[in-house]
Amino acid sequence: MKPSAVVLLSGGLDSATCLAIAKAEGFQPVALAVWYGQRHRIELDSAREIARALSVQDFRLIAVDLRAVGGSALTAEIPVPKDRPEADRAEGVPVTYVPARNTILLSLALSLAEVVGAMDLFIGVNAVDYSGYPDCRPEFIRAFETLANLGTKVGATGGRFKVHAPLAGLSKAEIIRRGSALDVPYRLTHSCYDPDPEGGACGRCDSCVLRRRGFEQAGVTDPTRYRRRESP
Amino acid sequence: MKPSAVVLLSGGLDSATCLAIAKAEGFQPVALAVWYGQRHRIELDSAREIARALSVQDFRLIAVDLRAVGGSALTAEIPVPKDRPEADRAEGVPVTYVPARNTILLSLALSLAEVVGAMDLFIGVNAVDYSGYPDCRPEFIRAFETLANLGTKVGATGGRFKVHAPLAGLSKAEIIRRGSALDVPYRLTHSCYDPDPEGGACGRCDSCVLRRRGFEQAGVTDPTRYRRRESP
Repeated sequence: MKPSAVVLLSGGLDSATCLAIAKAEGFQPVALAVWYGQRHRIELDSAREIARALSVQDFRLIAVDLRAVGGSALTAEIPVPKDRPEADRAEGVPVTYVPARNTILLSLALSLAEVVGAMDLFIGVNAVDYSGYPDCRPEFIRAFETLANLGTKVGATGGRFKVHAPLAGLSKAEIIRRGSALDVPYRLTHSCYDPDPEGGACGRCDSCVLRRRGFEQAGVTDPTRYRRRESP
Repeated sequence: MKPSAVVLLSGGLDSATCLAIAKAEGFQPVALAVWYGQRHRIELDSAREIARALSVQDFRLIAVDLRAVGGSALTAEIPVPKDRPEADRAEGVPVTYVPARNTILLSLALSLAEVVGAMDLFIGVNAVDYSGYPDCRPEFIRAFETLANLGTKVGATGGRFKVHAPLAGLSKAEIIRRGSALDVPYRLTHSCYDPDPEGGACGRCDSCVLRRRGFEQAGVTDPTRYRRRESP
């Protein structure tokens, strides 16, 4: 029997690739999507469809309403920046940072892992193209492993959790090439921070810009449906 | 101006005491209650009333539905044990353990702290009377501090979070004596894992047993309303 692994699945291309990698590495994935108050629930529909397309048998959705916390353009009424110059994107923590998001996501994944008997967690963090999020760094991932082994029944009785971040060292183009080789259904993935009501991507937020460029650099056709460019 | 601190408030006597200590230490508390799927929402009513009684100006409630995870007598349909012998209570992780609960609670507190500009978190964990929960141990608390400083914008830019666990070394009786000196409104606190619909405590679950004994040992009158003993 394959060992179980809890794979965080956001509906974006990174986590979809991460899921395919978990499968390719021989794990039986339990996919975990989290609604944390982000305004665009379309991501969760994407997550569910990706899980289905990749034949995941156990898909879970946990809702945690971080709107009571606020502080991010993804959960509060703060505008998503568009057409930012490269230099801006390269430095500082962006307003789309959700405070302590990956700590929260990994905590939920850990809770689920303990219940389903998985010792492995997968998270599609990626620190190469976009270093603005502190909770994507490898040292953060290692610190979470330490915490997981101290803060759980399984860890307290000798089990050792491992947090896999297989995309940590890859560029967006490398992720896309890797995922394409694993038949990740990129047409189902959603990246835009500010989609239109029908799910069309804006093409101009940081996430769209990185996605577009990644497909270009990977030499893979971008299946994203971008909406027509609005006047700024 | 007093520095802000996020204080996790469950509605039980430990966290209520912890809140009073945070105030006594000169912090302006932001109280955070979390509904994590526990069947008994009465705890949250208690949390709100305690916050009001202790003049907390900022009370937040975050809902995270761990019923999608299950695995605990507090969130799933697993019976709460009653009248357990002392030897059973002293060893092993109880079925009321919620997998990775304190990791999740501290993650949420951290997210809120980052938004409200607090560098201090308070959690009323207590490892003396009841060592069964791995995520109450001091080494767990230290590991969370390390994680917090790596996984946040504030931490990445030089800030240092501190997690206060002022009850860690105290017995239940000592907690009650300390809280009584600080005028903690214990009549508003709720401890029972299995209350009746009107909020009457069972008097027989682990939590009730520890509470009762704590008041006895502290020489403080227990203001809890226990329901009449049912036949087992």
